[in-house]
Amino acid sequence: MFVFYIVSFLTAAVAFLFALYLYLWVKKHKIENKEIERISLLIKDGANTFLKREYKLLAAFAIAVAVLILIVFPHPIWKSNPADNVLTAIAYLAGTALSALAGKIGILVATLSNARCAEKAQKGLKDAFLLGFRGGSVMGLLVVGCSLFGVAFVLMITGKASILLGFSFGASSLALFAKAGGGIFTKTADVAADLTGKVELGMAEDDPRNPAVIADNVGDNVGDVAGMGADLFDSNVAAMTSALVIAQSLSGSLAATEMVFAYSILGLIASIIGIMTARVGKDGNPTRALNSSTYVTTAIFLILTAVSTALLEGFSWRIWLSSALGLIVGLIIGLTTDYFTDDTKPIVKKVAKASSSGPAFTILSGTSYGFISSAPAMIGIAISSLVSYKICEPIGEGYALFGIAMAAVGMLSIVGMIISNDAYGPIVDNARGLAEMGGLGEETIKVADELDSAGNTVKAVTKGFSIGAAGLTVISLLGAFMSETNSALRELGKDLINGFDIMDPSVFFGLLIGAAIPAVFSAMLILGVDKNAERMVAEIHRQFNTIKGLKEGKAEADYGKCIDIATKGALKELIPAGLVAIVSTLLVGFIAGSKAIGGFLVGNIVSGLLLALFMSNSGGLWDNSKKYIEADHEGGKGSDAHKSAVIGDTVGDPYKDTAGPSINTQITVVSLVASLASSLFAAFSIFG
Amino acid sequence: MFVFYIVSFLTAAVAFLFALYLYLWVKKHKIENKEIERISLLIKDGANTFLKREYKLLAAFAIAVAVLILIVFPHPIWKSNPADNVLTAIAYLAGTALSALAGKIGILVATLSNARCAEKAQKGLKDAFLLGFRGGSVMGLLVVGCSLFGVAFVLMITGKASILLGFSFGASSLALFAKAGGGIFTKTADVAADLTGKVELGMAEDDPRNPAVIADNVGDNVGDVAGMGADLFDSNVAAMTSALVIAQSLSGSLAATEMVFAYSILGLIASIIGIMTARVGKDGNPTRALNSSTYVTTAIFLILTAVSTALLEGFSWRIWLSSALGLIVGLIIGLTTDYFTDDTKPIVKKVAKASSSGPAFTILSGTSYGFISSAPAMIGIAISSLVSYKICEPIGEGYALFGIAMAAVGMLSIVGMIISNDAYGPIVDNARGLAEMGGLGEETIKVADELDSAGNTVKAVTKGFSIGAAGLTVISLLGAFMSETNSALRELGKDLINGFDIMDPSVFFGLLIGAAIPAVFSAMLILGVDKNAERMVAEIHRQFNTIKGLKEGKAEADYGKCIDIATKGALKELIPAGLVAIVSTLLVGFIAGSKAIGGFLVGNIVSGLLLALFMSNSGGLWDNSKKYIEADHEGGKGSDAHKSAVIGDTVGDPYKDTAGPSINTQITVVSLVASLASSLFAAFSIFG
Repeated sequence: MFVFYIVSFLTAAVAFLFALYLYLWVKKHKIENKEIERISLLIKDGANTFLKREYKLLAAFAIAVAVLILIVFPHPIWKSNPADNVLTAIAYLAGTALSALAGKIGILVATLSNARCAEKAQKGLKDAFLLGFRGGSVMGLLVVGCSLFGVAFVLMITGKASILLGFSFGASSLALFAKAGGGIFTKTADVAADLTGKVELGMAEDDPRNPAVIADNVGDNVGDVAGMGADLFDSNVAAMTSALVIAQSLSGSLAATEMVFAYSILGLIASIIGIMTARVGKDGNPTRALNSSTYVTTAIFLILTAVSTALLEGFSWRIWLSSALGLIVGLIIGLTTDYFTDDTKPIVKKVAKASSSGPAFTILSGTSYGFISSAPAMIGIAISSLVSYKICEPIGEGYALFGIAMAAVGMLSIVGMIISNDAYGPIVDNARGLAEMGGLGEETIKVADELDSAGNTVKAVTKGFSIGAAGLTVISLLGAFMSETNSALRELGKDLINGFDIMDPSVFFGLLIGAAIPAVFSAMLILGVDKNAERMVAEIHRQFNTIKGLKEGKAEADYGKCIDIATKGALKELIPAGLVAIVSTLLVGFIAGSKAIGGFLVGNIVSGLLLALFMSNSGGLWDNSKKYIEADHEGGKGSDAHKSAVIGDTVGDPYKDTAGPSINTQITVVSLVASLASSLFAAFSIFG
Repeated sequence: MFVFYIVSFLTAAVAFLFALYLYLWVKKHKIENKEIERISLLIKDGANTFLKREYKLLAAFAIAVAVLILIVFPHPIWKSNPADNVLTAIAYLAGTALSALAGKIGILVATLSNARCAEKAQKGLKDAFLLGFRGGSVMGLLVVGCSLFGVAFVLMITGKASILLGFSFGASSLALFAKAGGGIFTKTADVAADLTGKVELGMAEDDPRNPAVIADNVGDNVGDVAGMGADLFDSNVAAMTSALVIAQSLSGSLAATEMVFAYSILGLIASIIGIMTARVGKDGNPTRALNSSTYVTTAIFLILTAVSTALLEGFSWRIWLSSALGLIVGLIIGLTTDYFTDDTKPIVKKVAKASSSGPAFTILSGTSYGFISSAPAMIGIAISSLVSYKICEPIGEGYALFGIAMAAVGMLSIVGMIISNDAYGPIVDNARGLAEMGGLGEETIKVADELDSAGNTVKAVTKGFSIGAAGLTVISLLGAFMSETNSALRELGKDLINGFDIMDPSVFFGLLIGAAIPAVFSAMLILGVDKNAERMVAEIHRQFNTIKGLKEGKAEADYGKCIDIATKGALKELIPAGLVAIVSTLLVGFIAGSKAIGGFLVGNIVSGLLLALFMSNSGGLWDNSKKYIEADHEGGKGSDAHKSAVIGDTVGDPYKDTAGPSINTQITVVSLVASLASSLFAAFSIFG
């Protein structure tokens, strides 16, 4: 086993060094255009200001939770071995810290890459693409390196997978708020900028006269770079953690534990190779470049893990199959998402056509296709969990659930590549904004547009991945919850739980309430964006009315004020929604007991997956329908269809960038809270 | 027991006679205005044409299903007692026929009452209210009388509650299509009439120049009267059936069976008394009149059932408590719905205020509050099922589930009153249209508006009831499914099922797929409305462009053509969505077996409840926000806020009147299909 820890550390170190190399590579490109440099600094400062204030708030929250963990988790400190509580609390803090660090450095590189990417876009796709992609890769490598390092380190020191639950909870509680806070910030700015600039005044996207334009670009960074990085750090850690918790309870647990690390190590190596191969020719297609490097990574991962299975003792081919299945189902989910959101496919065209009958039809058709699009992914997750279970069942007791956990690990194995693709999006989006604001001319903006559109398409695929992985991970966390609960019940001398029967009224009770949580949670986030955007719209109107010469481009807008509003609003709105999820879990557990929590978690997964898929996909669909119309279809820009599509896009923005991806994290957080509190529920519930 | 059958028949007969009396009472009012009489005949003819064509299509469908039942349900005919198959098939056909009959007569009276209500509105609220309400009551009494009569008759003849499943499936399969077909018809016409008439041409609601105006009024009848009647007939029969199936498996089954009938009989009697008390003074408040008669009915039901429990042997107070709890939770669900949709409460005002920032905010805020509004109802259903279970558990084995079934029976006990309130809505809505088209003047339209607004408010309460009842009914149907499956497994000599464990991968597999079905089902219906409305908008444009003098009111529109489009489209779109639900149930059952079906049903209930509540409530919220703005708030008619609110209302229309209420029926249909096919799944599934 020791050798696996060492290799994990070494691989993480390679990832960090490679990230450093890419960082220096990005940095050595010099920015020549002073205006671009100035604006890019404004964006950087805005992002850092937000992060600093967000992390300050979250640090207070994390410390409070750590104290709570110290006192009562995994057992009340006066009843158990206090070392466990101390270690869990420290692991929790380490999880939050690593998550914050990855986000922070991701933003550092992203705000470095955006200006450079914009400048290079003057000379065509090739270098601009590389700057965008490699900037994103720094974040991808850091996230995967940190998760591999963190998980290996915690397990090596403590030897207990259950303490990893604390580490994982740290990662996911920070992700919950980073995603929600960043998501509210970015959509506040985006929606307000679009409504006032584009719709009211007919300005172009990223017009520098718009007071919200810098806030909009800051939002891309804090929402899509830092938030998304935290999200996938969380998913990756949670997938490894749940696999390791189950692995430790197996007979032959050593080989199972080794497999988890081996697969994660090989996934990181495959991602590094994949990142190196990503390139686009002078007139090449950036979407194809991103996709083909994803396929390369997938293939390398499958080959490397097959080799490891053949060579290493105790590595099972059945597990390999499950993990391959998870990865392939992830790709399939991504592809169906692509079918529903890509503007070369029929659905986007249908919604664009419906838009010419008015905005109500944009909304109705987008909503409908969004709901339909959730079905293939749900079926895919259902099949992969059932098949992995059946494949791995014959290995021995408990291996069936381990198979599902390894399907999730497989799906997330190439996460380094996924994040690189995903972080590429906001960087080139920013580059497009800088090209516009810096006046680099039509030709450059066109190049930047092409890069940006590739980012949008690939984003859909990566979102499918992360939602699918969350689904599978949470299934295996359910197993972790049950085994934690049973060990608590055993100590208390109570009857063990042998499952969660739907016909048991407590389970059904939990199921119904759990299903309502993602709906309430996402609604609160959307309302947060709503309220905040209204405040910012008022501020923009104030600036246009009181700053002389602003409309004519002769005076500069007060960008800082808009950033300030987005920041304050996001911080104010991010806590309540997260608390609803956490507190309702504790309430159900303490009132109705462990069985109710089993139902609660499942209700939460099921409705959470449904809503996350619906929101992500319908949002992407509306965004691309608008872009499709802007490319001179259905009357093009300024037509009635376009006006309707802009409304659809505005509705879709908080769906796809605030609520949808946050639901993902909400599911994981709730599962981890339940696992951590399992012994308390077993001991203290009122009606359990 | 025999005496309960006789009293059931007698009570049903009283209900029929009382309905006849009300029918004659409505009819004796003469229509004086020739124009109103003419238009009301157009509406009646349109509704009858649609019904005739719909029922023809559904008759073919029903016969096909009956043949299928004859051959394989409840067991393959070559393997079992053929008499069971024959009886089940006949019971199925009887269920469809009674459902169709109730819908048909409901429309007959509704189209009789609307014109008379419009005329009486010239003289104030009092008589107009009574005409609207008593017209609706005819339908309410018929539906409850038919269900009580049908259930008692089938059980008396066959003695087997399991054959009632066939009767109930007949009722619910017809309801599924009647609701979906009527819902598509009514919203096609409504949306198309609003978009062209109100939005494009600035005409008033119900302007006779609008070619879709008659189709719109026809839609109120076929969707809200016939469709809703079929829906509640289905819910009521399903609630009784599931209670009776469970009752027959209990020790002391006789008293339990008697209780089911006693409660239904007493509910009908309470409804008759409640209907008689409904009155409004000359300047009274119609909303208060409708609500107070609901409360009267509730109180009488609770007293009568308490008396019966005290007097009759074997009647348990615990069951009485469960059933009272169900009824009270139903009222509470109705009241929370009211909170989210009533324009005197804060939520409607918030959405109206958000509308002044643009249509995207109307949609986002309405969607968010719609999601939040689903939580109290889900929690209410969760609590009532858990508490009824716990209350009735001590009576004996199996009584816990019977308690849940009786909570559903309790919730639906006052369904006669509920339907009267609900059918009142479309009648006064029609009356308002006739007052406008017949030129009865501002004063009369104002009276009709007041009646109409009461209809809208009360509708929200009744929808909460029917969704809540569907939830509880389906939980008890799950018990029915399990007991049917086990008796099949016992015959096959296989291991019995003792529950549906979420950790079992087959159950989880079914759960995920079941949860996706309501999303796909409702999306297909909304897209059906979408497509159909686009066709009708094109036809309206054609008429305005080619019929000379139409815009000026000098030529008459071709109303028939619009009715024809709505009819054809509705019939074309109604079958596929229903088939998706039924076929996917069979697929999951035959592929993954009985346990997967258990999960499938639960996933279906959970996501179905969530989406049904979301859609019904957000739709009502948007509708009333628009009305609130029209009452001179946020700038009043013609303001930007109003334009946004109209878009919200158009989105909400198919949510609340097509998809939302159909999901309800879809849940029941799927549960009944599963129960009927249980022995086939037990014998023939591939991986079960």
